[in-house]
Amino acid sequence: MASSKTVRKLQVVSPVPADIDIANSVEPLHISEIGQELNLKPNHYDLYGKYKAKVLLSVLDELQGSADGYYVVVGGITPTPLGEGKSTTTVGLCQALGAFLDKKVVTCLRQPSQGPTFGIKGGAAGGGYSQVIPMDEFNLHLTGDIHAITAANNLLAAAIDTRIFHESSQSDKALFNRLCPPNKEGKRSFSNIMFRRLNKLGISKTQPEDLTPEEIRKFARLDIDPDSITWRRVMDVNDRFLRKITIGQGPDEKGMVRETGFDISVASEIMAVLALTTSLADMRERLGKMVIGNSKAGVPITTDDLGIGGALTVLMKDAINPTLMQTLEGTPVLVHAGPFANIAHGNSSVVADKIALKLVGPGGFVVTEAGFGADIGTEKFMNIKCRYSGLTPQCAIIVATIRALKMHGGGPEVVAGKPLDHAYLNENVALVEAGCVNLARHISNTKAYGVNVVVAVNKFATDTEAELNAVRNAALAAGAFDAVVCSHHAHGGKGAVDLGIAVQRACENVTQSMKFLYPLDISIKEKIEAIARSYGASGVEYSEQAEKQIEMYSRQGFSGLPICMAKTQYSFSHNAGQKGAPSGFILPIRDVRASIGAGFIYPLVGTMSTMPGLPTRPCFYDIDIDIATGKVLGLS
Amino acid sequence: MASSKTVRKLQVVSPVPADIDIANSVEPLHISEIGQELNLKPNHYDLYGKYKAKVLLSVLDELQGSADGYYVVVGGITPTPLGEGKSTTTVGLCQALGAFLDKKVVTCLRQPSQGPTFGIKGGAAGGGYSQVIPMDEFNLHLTGDIHAITAANNLLAAAIDTRIFHESSQSDKALFNRLCPPNKEGKRSFSNIMFRRLNKLGISKTQPEDLTPEEIRKFARLDIDPDSITWRRVMDVNDRFLRKITIGQGPDEKGMVRETGFDISVASEIMAVLALTTSLADMRERLGKMVIGNSKAGVPITTDDLGIGGALTVLMKDAINPTLMQTLEGTPVLVHAGPFANIAHGNSSVVADKIALKLVGPGGFVVTEAGFGADIGTEKFMNIKCRYSGLTPQCAIIVATIRALKMHGGGPEVVAGKPLDHAYLNENVALVEAGCVNLARHISNTKAYGVNVVVAVNKFATDTEAELNAVRNAALAAGAFDAVVCSHHAHGGKGAVDLGIAVQRACENVTQSMKFLYPLDISIKEKIEAIARSYGASGVEYSEQAEKQIEMYSRQGFSGLPICMAKTQYSFSHNAGQKGAPSGFILPIRDVRASIGAGFIYPLVGTMSTMPGLPTRPCFYDIDIDIATGKVLGLS
Repeated sequence: MASSKTVRKLQVVSPVPADIDIANSVEPLHISEIGQELNLKPNHYDLYGKYKAKVLLSVLDELQGSADGYYVVVGGITPTPLGEGKSTTTVGLCQALGAFLDKKVVTCLRQPSQGPTFGIKGGAAGGGYSQVIPMDEFNLHLTGDIHAITAANNLLAAAIDTRIFHESSQSDKALFNRLCPPNKEGKRSFSNIMFRRLNKLGISKTQPEDLTPEEIRKFARLDIDPDSITWRRVMDVNDRFLRKITIGQGPDEKGMVRETGFDISVASEIMAVLALTTSLADMRERLGKMVIGNSKAGVPITTDDLGIGGALTVLMKDAINPTLMQTLEGTPVLVHAGPFANIAHGNSSVVADKIALKLVGPGGFVVTEAGFGADIGTEKFMNIKCRYSGLTPQCAIIVATIRALKMHGGGPEVVAGKPLDHAYLNENVALVEAGCVNLARHISNTKAYGVNVVVAVNKFATDTEAELNAVRNAALAAGAFDAVVCSHHAHGGKGAVDLGIAVQRACENVTQSMKFLYPLDISIKEKIEAIARSYGASGVEYSEQAEKQIEMYSRQGFSGLPICMAKTQYSFSHNAGQKGAPSGFILPIRDVRASIGAGFIYPLVGTMSTMPGLPTRPCFYDIDIDIATGKVLGLS
Repeated sequence: MASSKTVRKLQVVSPVPADIDIANSVEPLHISEIGQELNLKPNHYDLYGKYKAKVLLSVLDELQGSADGYYVVVGGITPTPLGEGKSTTTVGLCQALGAFLDKKVVTCLRQPSQGPTFGIKGGAAGGGYSQVIPMDEFNLHLTGDIHAITAANNLLAAAIDTRIFHESSQSDKALFNRLCPPNKEGKRSFSNIMFRRLNKLGISKTQPEDLTPEEIRKFARLDIDPDSITWRRVMDVNDRFLRKITIGQGPDEKGMVRETGFDISVASEIMAVLALTTSLADMRERLGKMVIGNSKAGVPITTDDLGIGGALTVLMKDAINPTLMQTLEGTPVLVHAGPFANIAHGNSSVVADKIALKLVGPGGFVVTEAGFGADIGTEKFMNIKCRYSGLTPQCAIIVATIRALKMHGGGPEVVAGKPLDHAYLNENVALVEAGCVNLARHISNTKAYGVNVVVAVNKFATDTEAELNAVRNAALAAGAFDAVVCSHHAHGGKGAVDLGIAVQRACENVTQSMKFLYPLDISIKEKIEAIARSYGASGVEYSEQAEKQIEMYSRQGFSGLPICMAKTQYSFSHNAGQKGAPSGFILPIRDVRASIGAGFIYPLVGTMSTMPGLPTRPCFYDIDIDIATGKVLGLS
């Protein structure tokens, strides 16, 4: 048993109570105790109440010379719409490693979007006896990072429309005079950020007075093409009526109306920047080079052209510090960033992983989750996140359930909110075996990165020994390092001890070195095609719009970026109905977009919703506060 | 000199450096030291980093039995567009009381809106040697209260449009079945919040099965009239292009387009609720009874009808705790709420003032600022804020400047961004004397509440002895308890010691008891007319729309609420150009609206902008981060 002071013994009850009841049954430790266990000194973090702390990036500088722990990524097989328990497994494994196997361990999780908490989905802190607590603080506000993203994203949006507005009504000279106003002595000067634009324009003059009229025009007039603007406003609320809107209809905006829309905040490129950045200086540069659209001449317009990259960084300066929380069994968790897993890369932050790897040190474990199935989440973890971080994982977990494997084997459709077909509730080994083709392809794809693959079978009460054995056998046959049945949902860390032991062995016995799926210096199309092959596609088909965009990004010099596929998570292919391991299909690319600041090109395979809606009876009907205790009620 | 441990000696430099340079020249104390000085125990507050803490409302329960300190409100004469230093005077006075007169003192300030920080205005933490620090934390994010308001406001907005959408496509029975879905055993039930609507409808049944079809229709169908919706979305960004927009243009929203718009977040009724609430239980009730519009039958529809009052309270549960900060001289500041001073009441929170009054105790001082001139700010402080809080001030300060008095005496127009006319830079006692009619009316209006009035003349370098004496004489003649010249901008607390002594004497020598300007049980029109008379108006003129609204609110049972006039701050009258003390005019009421949850009716005297815009060269051009130190640069 663990010697750690912060470890808590869980009193496990059967059947498993509601998540919120389990979460509320445990008194969290003061977060400074969790910090102390990680050897964090009080100057390494800022408290946010009693149960959350922001770990400061300066910790990384201090620990620069020390060695990293083992790095474990958690992916999954192609899921059912009910989810297969990837977050729960991530948390359960860490509870096992920390509370039962006496290892230093940090769980790295994404911050959930607040919007869906009030819609259909409820919270996202794991489940059963494998959760992050306090659950309400995890799901609501946290330490304000998403609010900071919303503020920064929308300040930029306001700046774009206002700039077009002011340019439309002013002469070059008037614009320039307002941008570089005289001081009390009548002298004009450039602000620091203006030198970035001057530099981009190839103007090396340092005094406003020295610019020629032509240079004044080039400098002061961004000449943004309204139709080219890709930057949208965001809100951390499920507000479907904002998906498509017309703005600028007030009498003072002089008829400059424009169609645009809102995405949910976590879809903002700024969220992807936060997740991929490596330092404050790096974040400043990424936030400054985000492209919001083109000039009428086709030149990409950046945030620094608008003079706003510094202000965005200031709004994000606290958000760059990951938030320390704890699991039900008192092991530490770093919560940080939560980008979309289709239009972005769906992984928590690089800086949280980096800090965690130093804090656990050699022999310790950092377990980080990758969104969606391994075809998307693990692929992006490797080819985008690890490429930018320079970190190397030793082990990749693939979470599987009997339920999802049966679906892949040909079982009836699984629909959220509808009762499960009896095929899913009674033993059917043949269905499971047939479905293991899906698992097998995820295993071989993941192994190709040079990591050891451990399959974690997230056990449900209805699963039988014969079904579980079928998965173990298929996994080993497909090349998994190990395959382990676990029951952390029902038993907490104790239910994932075997998984923990397997992961430890996998980390200690790496024989290959890390390989990416594709190099960066090939064309955008070649990169897309490499990923499509990993899905089982025999080819790729580009729409006219996609061709145009690829040509434009290549011309603008962005072809060296990694690719972030926006594809359904419900199939290896573009067709959510195609279960198992489809092959021989042609992958259609509808459009291609780019997040230049975050650093990737994202082809759209199908249509992605970036703003959810509320159902007729949203979760909020159940949510209230206990006036006497201040406790949150009804959060699920 | 003060014996307090937290007091810091300022090294004052002349001429006064830039605000940010002064703010950055002082190393703030750890906020726990400020808390300790107020006898706050660690369980009384939650830290938010090193320099901010949220003081928990439970402190109020603990100190229930102990006596309050003196309560001082700071108003001003009718200002110029440049502002007359009300915040600075509030902070400077507290620095004097705490750091030089050895008094227990707490400054209660509004949280500034983040939007304008990046526009024209810059920050709002006081100025010169009278500031709240750290200035960047005060102006950006703070402890997330405004972000919580934005989230709650917009969740409600999404719920309104989605509810109309779902009602439009579903039968009564389908709606009802979705609102009260069967559980696993097939049994339906009402959620707790639904009993509030059932109660409003006079339905006392507790089982969904027992409702008649007619009751089902009444319960499930809110039947909101889209044209009656007064609830708008908000954003804490200066985004003029959102002032008027069309929503619902996405293909999945089935053509349910609607014109609406965004206000800046601090204009949300939820901000006014936060400012006026007295406890968590009270906030739950206020957030539940906010009216978002009417049913087609003319019945007011509340947030609890929508089933969302509890969720809004959960989103606001941390925001209800005021944020503790410090002045440059180490005295404590509570920052909390910042409602508009026209469409709302423009005062910081009741709970912050209540906590502060207990913390300073008998002989101590709480100094709180009221937005705009005293005709608006102090009037609303008395008739709205004190009415709801039950608190009684002893002293009201009126801040005056020679500059503004000269303007009222007939000096040329003062325009922000343009050089001041020489009349304002050279001695002109006659202009000052003529302008004192404005000060005199503010004094007599304020005295009528039963408080002692102290005039604080905020001294500028160009003011002469003769001019300052003219003001002192006029103030005393008009019935001020005292009139004191102060120089806290240039000298910090030391420059406001005389003001502190005068305020102490004023508090110790109250002879009258508090009187409101109007009782609540007269009609809406009678209340409006009482306030109009205090402006000098001889009558009130109502538009057709205003008449209609007054009739509706009276019919709906809201006529017992206090009145919150939305009027320009630049004149006693509705005409910003009318300086001095105009009288005999007819005050036009263009429209009348209501914030039922916050608890006031607000007549619109003219048009109020509730969403600012960005200029051609916004402040953000100067704002950046020092990559090496993490310090914020260029914030002003």
